Amino acid sequence: MLAVHLENRRVEVRKVARPQRKESFALIRLLAGGICNTDLELQRGYYAFTGTPGHEFVGEVVSADNPNLLSRRVVGEINLACRKCDWCRRGLGRHCPTRSVLGIQGHPGAFREFLTLPEANLHVIPDSISNEAAVFVEPLAAACEILDQASIPDGAEIAVLGDGKLGLLIAQVLNASRKNVHLYGRHKNKMRIAERAGVQVIVSKQASKSKSSAYDWVIEATGSSDGLQQAIRMTRPRGTIFLKSTVHGSVHLDAAPVIVNEITLIGSRCGRFEPALALLQSRSINVVDMISEAMPLAQAKRAFTRATERGVLKVLIQPD
Amino acid sequence: MLAVHLENRRVEVRKVARPQRKESFALIRLLAGGICNTDLELQRGYYAFTGTPGHEFVGEVVSADNPNLLSRRVVGEINLACRKCDWCRRGLGRHCPTRSVLGIQGHPGAFREFLTLPEANLHVIPDSISNEAAVFVEPLAAACEILDQASIPDGAEIAVLGDGKLGLLIAQVLNASRKNVHLYGRHKNKMRIAERAGVQVIVSKQASKSKSSAYDWVIEATGSSDGLQQAIRMTRPRGTIFLKSTVHGSVHLDAAPVIVNEITLIGSRCGRFEPALALLQSRSINVVDMISEAMPLAQAKRAFTRATERGVLKVLIQPD
Repeated sequence: MLAVHLENRRVEVRKVARPQRKESFALIRLLAGGICNTDLELQRGYYAFTGTPGHEFVGEVVSADNPNLLSRRVVGEINLACRKCDWCRRGLGRHCPTRSVLGIQGHPGAFREFLTLPEANLHVIPDSISNEAAVFVEPLAAACEILDQASIPDGAEIAVLGDGKLGLLIAQVLNASRKNVHLYGRHKNKMRIAERAGVQVIVSKQASKSKSSAYDWVIEATGSSDGLQQAIRMTRPRGTIFLKSTVHGSVHLDAAPVIVNEITLIGSRCGRFEPALALLQSRSINVVDMISEAMPLAQAKRAFTRATERGVLKVLIQPD
Repeated sequence: MLAVHLENRRVEVRKVARPQRKESFALIRLLAGGICNTDLELQRGYYAFTGTPGHEFVGEVVSADNPNLLSRRVVGEINLACRKCDWCRRGLGRHCPTRSVLGIQGHPGAFREFLTLPEANLHVIPDSISNEAAVFVEPLAAACEILDQASIPDGAEIAVLGDGKLGLLIAQVLNASRKNVHLYGRHKNKMRIAERAGVQVIVSKQASKSKSSAYDWVIEATGSSDGLQQAIRMTRPRGTIFLKSTVHGSVHLDAAPVIVNEITLIGSRCGRFEPALALLQSRSINVVDMISEAMPLAQAKRAFTRATERGVLKVLIQPD
């Protein structure tokens, strides 16, 4: 079978043996995968990653212990947890200290014709959700995580900084959850996707200057190391900033305004899949417009390059 | 009268006219003031401060509109708020956007023989609290602020990083509030003050290495720009760090572990005076042992130098 292989910042496609599934794992045939910014960061050398990347996917179960999974379309939670520790017992296997992570750490990713995942990680996709939409369940769950971490009142004004893939999803999720979302970004064409969903968009290169101390809630999803400083400037005293940008290395934090204004910063990562599936099923979120291109698995190298190009949103990878 | 004057990083004592009190302000004769790290930072040039510093004080009211205040010993909240805006109406004048701040911004400080403050800012001190202890009400209130910002369960293990004045106060406040406090610092002699109050102390130059991901609650009070990184390393996934160090300029924040572990950072500044007064009245906190020296106002320059010396905790300034 074909599998993407990432090593020393190079993406290539290799012929490898089909994986064997272990007990309680399912063998899954890939239907489609999505290239995430984290994949691009792995390519830039973060985590010293070597192997098959890919953690956004939809597939069909070809073999499993649980007969109810056979031939079903599934998406999968990316953290492979021990299911025994305190974190796992609290339903937070996403923080299990001995976890491996699909396509990121210790478990080969989804950009290959067949993959394996624990059956417990899988969610069957209803027929009403297309493959193209299902690829977005994982990043959509990460967007929904914000609502699990804090009680944001209905109608609250929230600034979302960043018009990349995650920023667009977060803006739509919060909008669908009855918040008054202001999306700040630089690319009119990208932001139109959120605008069509009812989000108020502000195209500005220096949004923060015009809106100082204006929001109780700010979501930092710029993907840039400057984003946090912008977010701090825009946040009211006693306000809350969610950190969603997976920026690697050190960022500069101007601690004085955080302390003087008693601002809360909340790191936010993966989320539960259930709310994301519910949003897709109710057609509350426009994800398909975010697909810039679908490319064959055999052309993964070109797909990775395409995903880094200016103005490009989601690039899908599909087996031939 | 004599007043400390700080300008271009130089501390001197000047003869100046006694201030006139405005309506609704009290004229207060200084009994004692305390040098805070913020005063030392003003001396280092932060906030481009020029004028009389000092915001920790106890004094005697010599003139006021309210006759009940006359001749009473008082301490005073340092934020002079408008008392009309939304923040003020919510009881959070500490965040009033048009506030001035005693000895820090827009209002001359307490290191002078007579000072003025709004009567609404004053709290009468009961006879059971000595002048020396009363000087600690303001920093003690800042320590208590943590308990106003989050519901920390009784018995929770909390790491307090830093054995400076604020770290020692915070450790004692949390201990008195039935938390299981572990104070990390480098100076045995300072930490003994907290130890006598029942706090478990850990003398270590690299506390963080031995205690990785060990605490749900961490208080960063090291006063150093490295403290935040230490705190992040010691915090469990989904844990909370309070930022108490008034560090100026940029600190390095390694955003990835904050995001991956979904850590919450909470900036924390001034607090209400009531809980601090209650703690002093119940003798739950040992503050007097934290006084390294009391020096006359006329020798303020020497007092500021003394306060920067290694091993020195609180230096008091007293009129002759």
